[in-house]
Amino acid sequence: MSIASPATQPVLIAGTWRDANASSTFQATDPNRNEKLDASFPVSEWKDCDEALDAAVEAAAELRKLGPEKVAEFLECYADKIDAAKDKLVETAFAETGLARSPRLADVELPRTSNQLRAAAKACRTGNWALPTIDTQAGIRSCYGPLGPVCVFGPNNFPFAFGSVSGGDFAAAIGAGNPVIGKANSSHPDTTRLFAELALEATAETGLPAATVQLIYRTSHADGEKLVSDPRVGATGYTGSRGAGLTLKAAADKAGKPIYLELSSVNPVVITPAALQERGDAIVDEFMTSVLMGTGQFCTNPGTVMLLKSDATDQFIAAVKERFSTSPSGTLLSPAVASSLGKSIEALVGFGAELLAGGGEAEADRCAIANTLLKTSGAEFLSNPEGFQTEAFGNASLLVVADDLDQLCEAIRHLEGNLTGCVYSANDGSDEESYSKIAFELEPKVGRLLNDKMPTGVAVSPAMNHGGPYPATGHPGFTAVGVPGALLRFGKLTSFDNVRESRLPALLKDTPPTAETWRMIDNQWSQGSVS
Amino acid sequence: MSIASPATQPVLIAGTWRDANASSTFQATDPNRNEKLDASFPVSEWKDCDEALDAAVEAAAELRKLGPEKVAEFLECYADKIDAAKDKLVETAFAETGLARSPRLADVELPRTSNQLRAAAKACRTGNWALPTIDTQAGIRSCYGPLGPVCVFGPNNFPFAFGSVSGGDFAAAIGAGNPVIGKANSSHPDTTRLFAELALEATAETGLPAATVQLIYRTSHADGEKLVSDPRVGATGYTGSRGAGLTLKAAADKAGKPIYLELSSVNPVVITPAALQERGDAIVDEFMTSVLMGTGQFCTNPGTVMLLKSDATDQFIAAVKERFSTSPSGTLLSPAVASSLGKSIEALVGFGAELLAGGGEAEADRCAIANTLLKTSGAEFLSNPEGFQTEAFGNASLLVVADDLDQLCEAIRHLEGNLTGCVYSANDGSDEESYSKIAFELEPKVGRLLNDKMPTGVAVSPAMNHGGPYPATGHPGFTAVGVPGALLRFGKLTSFDNVRESRLPALLKDTPPTAETWRMIDNQWSQGSVS
Repeated sequence: MSIASPATQPVLIAGTWRDANASSTFQATDPNRNEKLDASFPVSEWKDCDEALDAAVEAAAELRKLGPEKVAEFLECYADKIDAAKDKLVETAFAETGLARSPRLADVELPRTSNQLRAAAKACRTGNWALPTIDTQAGIRSCYGPLGPVCVFGPNNFPFAFGSVSGGDFAAAIGAGNPVIGKANSSHPDTTRLFAELALEATAETGLPAATVQLIYRTSHADGEKLVSDPRVGATGYTGSRGAGLTLKAAADKAGKPIYLELSSVNPVVITPAALQERGDAIVDEFMTSVLMGTGQFCTNPGTVMLLKSDATDQFIAAVKERFSTSPSGTLLSPAVASSLGKSIEALVGFGAELLAGGGEAEADRCAIANTLLKTSGAEFLSNPEGFQTEAFGNASLLVVADDLDQLCEAIRHLEGNLTGCVYSANDGSDEESYSKIAFELEPKVGRLLNDKMPTGVAVSPAMNHGGPYPATGHPGFTAVGVPGALLRFGKLTSFDNVRESRLPALLKDTPPTAETWRMIDNQWSQGSVS
Repeated sequence: MSIASPATQPVLIAGTWRDANASSTFQATDPNRNEKLDASFPVSEWKDCDEALDAAVEAAAELRKLGPEKVAEFLECYADKIDAAKDKLVETAFAETGLARSPRLADVELPRTSNQLRAAAKACRTGNWALPTIDTQAGIRSCYGPLGPVCVFGPNNFPFAFGSVSGGDFAAAIGAGNPVIGKANSSHPDTTRLFAELALEATAETGLPAATVQLIYRTSHADGEKLVSDPRVGATGYTGSRGAGLTLKAAADKAGKPIYLELSSVNPVVITPAALQERGDAIVDEFMTSVLMGTGQFCTNPGTVMLLKSDATDQFIAAVKERFSTSPSGTLLSPAVASSLGKSIEALVGFGAELLAGGGEAEADRCAIANTLLKTSGAEFLSNPEGFQTEAFGNASLLVVADDLDQLCEAIRHLEGNLTGCVYSANDGSDEESYSKIAFELEPKVGRLLNDKMPTGVAVSPAMNHGGPYPATGHPGFTAVGVPGALLRFGKLTSFDNVRESRLPALLKDTPPTAETWRMIDNQWSQGSVS
């Protein structure tokens, strides 16, 4: 059964673009006009998932046979195709997300995306993601390897760099040797479709199974839960709202299937009075740039600023209020984001937060809300810490002004898990004792602790942790950004005990597969052969 | 409220041995006599858990301040005390478990236990478990660190090496810098009590918070679920039955708390006809030693042997049947184990397995069942793969005889996740093609793939994976045995972004904390300083 019209876009299953088994269709919205775009996309029935899963299982077996070098070639070929298709990708994503064509989409996110794929290719080729470990005395060798088909649910806010078939989870899952079933984000289906076309071309050109990359656009919630818990699935990567993410988590957990989630985060930024006395104007600038960049739609947007009562703090608040009021508000990603932001602001005001700027209704002819600044006291925050941690995803931020350091630390102890936490303190070291107390409380709550820097930049670095304690993510030990670390999420650890050398994976044979491969041989990291 | 009699053993909470808030009491059984032992132990009410959690939170903060060197000193001091208390520990464990005093308890398990603690101490001191990573260009450094109080539920079958306050999970959790709340296994509470006494002494001697190690003996199931999902808990390690483990998993998952499980495993051993033709007698010997060792009560006991129809296979079966029938049966750990083994055998027979040896009733005056050998065909196995994978924990094994290689591979594809999988093939390489097909199917199902070797030895090696796909464990990426890998389970990943050098943890400062510390600096593993 298909109720999709001839104009409805096909899904990519088992290497073929074919009509979906669709229960209904949907269209994306151009948020700059608040009008639906022409292209129609199918909501798949279970049959599409089922066929994609069967094809993915076959592709997974084939990829294991082909090995890392071929997978690396695919990732590099795909990266080149993405770079070459830049103009079309940027135009399509601009229409679907309203994100600026330049520098954001064309000059920042697109190169980041292709370079992420190349970094994953390198980790795949060298095997340096897989922690190869050799114990010559015990005759045991171990490494991580593929764990099976991976489902990727991408978020709305990075159509390229976190896209379902182009972004960080995709690169990590493929780099670890697994096929991917992408579930497009409903706000940019056409962008995702373009990526899948390029990926399919790249599989053909590099000799990978066509079902290495598959794409569906949307399913019912029930089918989404069925998908992530299917016996044929190896793991799932999800980035998006907390509600939908926790529903998928419950289903995957019950089936014993790993699921990696990147959910909400208010990214507390603590700024001491001494820092503000020393360089208040500069901090105002840094904060404003960070909080309104991309209309505040970053996972690491500084949604909560924690301050201490002082004259310098008052001046900071006055300056920030002025800037919030006078800065033009950017376009939000979709009507849903605008609606959700409006509701979150309303909720925070309902809990007693004071509205310093913005807070109005969504605009009618554009997905936008005025830049919104809210304020509360440390005591109020502590009277309802859960409420005041309501994420307001978008161009909004909440200031929490504590009476003293003890109250500030107590508020930090009441924070949920977050992706990031920042501390701005005096450069001259005059408030080092305060810093120590603040950082000691903040560090257990965050995946990344920053000094004197806003959290919105997420460098693709081996030392990056784009992760954090629940509910920022589902597990405090994994990062979604950074190669080789991100690949570990999609790996299965296997020991080879007394396995004959000729039968070992290339990564564990006496001679390493590449000169750049690092292996832990008898407790020492080495690039050499087993002696 | 306490209904415990004066003779009831106290619990160890916040550094004090005190009367439990007990809802009832229980006694362990001497399985060699099938009689209850004198000592009475409390079933704690929630108040005990609650107080232990509060104390553990304080201890966790204190341990973070003290740092790895002090934790390492504690682990070493505790290891020495265990060695010194060998005789008492062995006698007590013998009375509670029936495991042989020598060599098993005194000469194998006890040294393994203290050496595990010393290995964890070394990993803790050097930081080599924590994957320290430095990106000098981006100014970001990351490593794993403690994640908070860890609950450890130890199994019945290793009173020392997997004991709640002495074993692998304990060593890993403490080595990663976390305090432990031990939940004793009910079959050897007095052994666990002795360990806790030694641990408490060691905390005092090395200046660690007294609540670094706490001990309760038993709780209601509801309180167990409440414990692993409490906001104050960092993570849980559980080794034991699948049913209880999955109940705890559901509770922990829902709360977003990591839980590491080691559950059931039938540890398939595939033996090719060519291997049997070549060295059938030797393989019979190896199998018999492995399958009846410790009365078959190893997590990696070879519970399923997969064979191919052939004369050599018939001879193997006849020889093994003879040996099962004539070998004296060992003592099982407890009446519960004997009862459960009896039920599993009954279930397998019910599914149609042929009883080749044993299968009788449990003995009355000892926890024991005759060595039991069962057989089924590949076709029957495939008609009910779930049923025929019923774990028969103890001195029993199921032979599955497939018609041909295709059927064997199909049966392997129907296996659940297991800790181990073995393939015995010809030494002369004459059945290499069969090996390839078998191993290709088996590898994704197991945490450790062995060649020509039984699975029961679990070396404490950095390359060991004592883990495997669900439902052998809860996650395919983690090992419960092996240092430094096992510690990663109890670590939280943290990036330090632009953090001033003086404020970094010792492991990430420009100069490494020890000469043996390995860090990944700008993509190269190094023991040097940041230049």
